[in-house]
Amino acid sequence: MENQEVKPLILVTNDDGILAPGLRALVEVAQSIGEVIVVAPDSPQSGMGHAITIHKPLRLTPVRAFEVITAYECSGTPVDCVKLAINVISKNRPFDLCVSGINHGSNASINIIYSGTLSAAMEASLDGINSIGFSLLDYEFDADFQPAKPFVRRICEHRLQHNGDGANLLNVNIPTSPIKGIKLCRQGEARWVEEFQEGSDPRGKSYYWLTGRFDDSDKETDTDLYALEHGFISVVPSMHDLTHYTVMDQLKSIEI
Amino acid sequence: MENQEVKPLILVTNDDGILAPGLRALVEVAQSIGEVIVVAPDSPQSGMGHAITIHKPLRLTPVRAFEVITAYECSGTPVDCVKLAINVISKNRPFDLCVSGINHGSNASINIIYSGTLSAAMEASLDGINSIGFSLLDYEFDADFQPAKPFVRRICEHRLQHNGDGANLLNVNIPTSPIKGIKLCRQGEARWVEEFQEGSDPRGKSYYWLTGRFDDSDKETDTDLYALEHGFISVVPSMHDLTHYTVMDQLKSIEI
Repeated sequence: MENQEVKPLILVTNDDGILAPGLRALVEVAQSIGEVIVVAPDSPQSGMGHAITIHKPLRLTPVRAFEVITAYECSGTPVDCVKLAINVISKNRPFDLCVSGINHGSNASINIIYSGTLSAAMEASLDGINSIGFSLLDYEFDADFQPAKPFVRRICEHRLQHNGDGANLLNVNIPTSPIKGIKLCRQGEARWVEEFQEGSDPRGKSYYWLTGRFDDSDKETDTDLYALEHGFISVVPSMHDLTHYTVMDQLKSIEI
Repeated sequence: MENQEVKPLILVTNDDGILAPGLRALVEVAQSIGEVIVVAPDSPQSGMGHAITIHKPLRLTPVRAFEVITAYECSGTPVDCVKLAINVISKNRPFDLCVSGINHGSNASINIIYSGTLSAAMEASLDGINSIGFSLLDYEFDADFQPAKPFVRRICEHRLQHNGDGANLLNVNIPTSPIKGIKLCRQGEARWVEEFQEGSDPRGKSYYWLTGRFDDSDKETDTDLYALEHGFISVVPSMHDLTHYTVMDQLKSIEI
């Protein structure tokens, strides 16, 4: 038998749903690198964070959304999609890479904790899979993903080449064109200043609808927010250990 | 005017819903320390992680679930409850403490990332509020929360006394009785080995239902899992900065 090169197996998912143009752009890049399986939510799942579906069953339906590519839509959250991809769809062959996105809108800074895009990538990383969440700083449905593609490809290839170096979860945010380069950053400190739009429904019952203003108080130059403001793609290595090690000493007196 | 002692204002929330016995236990403790406002989901929200409701309005309804205590049920996620509590219900008076739980079931180790209980607490901590997620290692509806109460009270009082020390988010897990004490820990490394129960619905359409086995591979003695196994309450100081600082150097070559 000849020595055939086995292409890397790449899981592509997102939180904007299987029909989002950002997913299509990511599939096109993934296709140029490896063998692709798509498992994406059947409806938009923005802001779902790391939600999983416990109390009801999930549906998984093969769809012909992309030419020659195996694709499924799933009734659950982005994290559900990844769990099904790993444990049901490709149970016998592990993924070499999981890419999530390209999200329509920023997941920089504190947005990471609300992001279905990043939670999907984190879920795959828990299984030891090299994982990347990609987001473009353009909320529009017809956002132009074209300029981002060569950079997305470079980052995917970097991770495949450096597999096993411990950096198996990246939060990548991409500014709108022109893109000046790629910067390694930390997660910027910022918060949402919330306001709720209050109103009355057609039956006179009051409601609250979440809105807010992004308050970027972190003015340091090593953050994702700074890189993006200056036209660079931000790459933040991320992790699932939330322990706040530096406050351990102050807290010692809580023990008994 | 006389110098009146102002009691701390405490927000109590959870992810098991406004009728959960664990919430009631936490309200009783909070009531013994300060002035209490309860805002909890109107239905169980386990596994919702840091999900927020963007695409539809939220309902907020005053309820008489607890004697003499201001309480609301909310149609959204645990994080939505906290956002509404801070920005609508108590807009003009900041909370001194936010406690979430007591969850029916463990949120130790990797469970923190799926947990609505902890996400609610994290959301409050983003606003600078001292916040604690409490969970009891007993999934049953009629779990006995009584033995946990003096410890919950101690931990709340500790945080109120040490406000501003930087440790404003704690993940507290409580073993079933007898409780030997309280240990400060790091988040144990563990993962869920997923299996999906496959079946057919009454119309013959196939479904997948999430199930799994907890795989605790971390055998060190400084973890929350170790403390709990040995009868101690685990306290893990946690944070929202997910940056994986220690892999920055290895990743430098990704820049351009």
